Amino acid sequence: MRAIHYDGATARYKDDYPEPTAGSGEALIRISLSALCNTDREVMRGYSPGFDNVMGHEFVGVVEQCADESLVGKRVVGGINLSCFKPDCLYCSTGRSTHCLDRTVLGIIDKDGCFADYISLPVRLLHTVPDSVPDEAAIFTEPLAAALRIVEQSPIAPDTPVALVGDGRLAFMIAQVIAQTGASLTIYGKNAAKLEIFSPFGNTCLIDKLEKGPSDALPLRNTYEVVIDATGSPDSLATSIALTRSEGLLIMKSTYTGKAEIDMSQVVVRELTIRGSRCGPFDEALRYLERELISLPPVEIFAPQDFEEAFSSDAFKVALDFC
Amino acid sequence: MRAIHYDGATARYKDDYPEPTAGSGEALIRISLSALCNTDREVMRGYSPGFDNVMGHEFVGVVEQCADESLVGKRVVGGINLSCFKPDCLYCSTGRSTHCLDRTVLGIIDKDGCFADYISLPVRLLHTVPDSVPDEAAIFTEPLAAALRIVEQSPIAPDTPVALVGDGRLAFMIAQVIAQTGASLTIYGKNAAKLEIFSPFGNTCLIDKLEKGPSDALPLRNTYEVVIDATGSPDSLATSIALTRSEGLLIMKSTYTGKAEIDMSQVVVRELTIRGSRCGPFDEALRYLERELISLPPVEIFAPQDFEEAFSSDAFKVALDFC
Repeated sequence: MRAIHYDGATARYKDDYPEPTAGSGEALIRISLSALCNTDREVMRGYSPGFDNVMGHEFVGVVEQCADESLVGKRVVGGINLSCFKPDCLYCSTGRSTHCLDRTVLGIIDKDGCFADYISLPVRLLHTVPDSVPDEAAIFTEPLAAALRIVEQSPIAPDTPVALVGDGRLAFMIAQVIAQTGASLTIYGKNAAKLEIFSPFGNTCLIDKLEKGPSDALPLRNTYEVVIDATGSPDSLATSIALTRSEGLLIMKSTYTGKAEIDMSQVVVRELTIRGSRCGPFDEALRYLERELISLPPVEIFAPQDFEEAFSSDAFKVALDFC
Repeated sequence: MRAIHYDGATARYKDDYPEPTAGSGEALIRISLSALCNTDREVMRGYSPGFDNVMGHEFVGVVEQCADESLVGKRVVGGINLSCFKPDCLYCSTGRSTHCLDRTVLGIIDKDGCFADYISLPVRLLHTVPDSVPDEAAIFTEPLAAALRIVEQSPIAPDTPVALVGDGRLAFMIAQVIAQTGASLTIYGKNAAKLEIFSPFGNTCLIDKLEKGPSDALPLRNTYEVVIDATGSPDSLATSIALTRSEGLLIMKSTYTGKAEIDMSQVVVRELTIRGSRCGPFDEALRYLERELISLPPVEIFAPQDFEEAFSSDAFKVALDFC
């Protein structure tokens, strides 16, 4: 089959990659559309040591083989964490299966991903896509679920002043999820053109205005009860901390290779809470999509063999068409 | 009066420092005993830029002058944050007065501290010491309150596996507060002799055993739902993060000058929560002391003019006697 394979150093298009088979409790899924994500870029930069598999974790496809025949022919999206679900697993037995220490992760840790004609995936990870949600919308299920994870972990009341730092794809999902809470939202970005598309969801502000210096920045420091950092870069951490009110909450959505510097005394003295946030609930994301609660950007679609062009595209969302 | 004054570069004993006067809403307090804290050492290292005042913030004393005559002659301890308490102050009006941006802090930010014969302090910050609590116990009110702040912010259930990283004075208070919750506590320290005095409150373990290397350390990683870092040093942060279970809570009690390095991707991917924790409730601390719920270490007492000797003492708790 066709697949984009990463060998630990280079990603390559192959047309003779072996097809997966569905094991016990699994389904074989024919991929329709697979979307690119920043994490895929990080994988190509060595984010996941030892990864020598097919890339990709955002997809929509059709079940082709499954012991449960009622699923065959169904259009599905799927969770990406293949956890052990053993009764003696600390994480699987305490509602935290996405943190199972023995898990593999689709296209990220030791499991062939969805930049391919076929994947196998445990049935328990599959979610049926409502008929009214087209494939071009369904590929947003995973990033939208990641955005919803924020309010799943930390409910946000409508009178909360919230700042979102970042103007990328994930930030676009997050902005809309936060706007739905009714909270007062300000989005800080580096790119005026990108920020423009955030304007329906809150105030927008160029982050440069914050970083001019302490005296200029001061009026905006200590301003937000909740700050969400979704820049994908360690450079924004000091700004995000400065924006957060004392006893406030800083939600980190940014993953990157390497370490960040942190003024931990400020965290202690100002009693800040910093919370990491990752994968979220798929059913809730599909309900959002079915009810058209969020606006989705256009998707630029490439053929699988043109994946390098896809990765260098400036488009807001890019996908590979395996139909 | 006698006072230990820090001029921004050096701490000096003076016997002619001007006595304070009690302003409106304030009391004049004659200091009996003042205790030394690591934060005092940090102040002498430049932790609080612009500080040119009398040092010290842990004390017990007797009210000598006060508009409210019922307080005169009472033995008191006092909160250290002199906040504005204006109705339009974001922090003072939302139950977070210790974070007031206009506050001064006794012996730390722009307010003469308690290494002196007298201090002035707002009456609202005073707490009467029960008769059964001697001065040598009352000086533990402030650090004990700081320890209680942990469970005020983050209640800990009895079935929680908790690790405390640090074997200093504050850690000694924290260990006992956590032991009171019934939680299963392990204390990690660098000094076998110091760790010995923690053994009544939980398991003890030399931190070196953790830092030998990834393979040796692995069994102890991901072990504790709650980890409390009270080392006073940035070096322990990576260890504290490693010890914390995914979706677990890392409570930071350590303040230090300078920045720390943090593996933020681990915080995000493992969905850790890091919470800063500072000053706590005095009344609850005094209740602990009155009910003798915690064991206190012996206090080594010095004359004020011997403060340099006091600062270089190896004793577990050191105080200056102003009687």
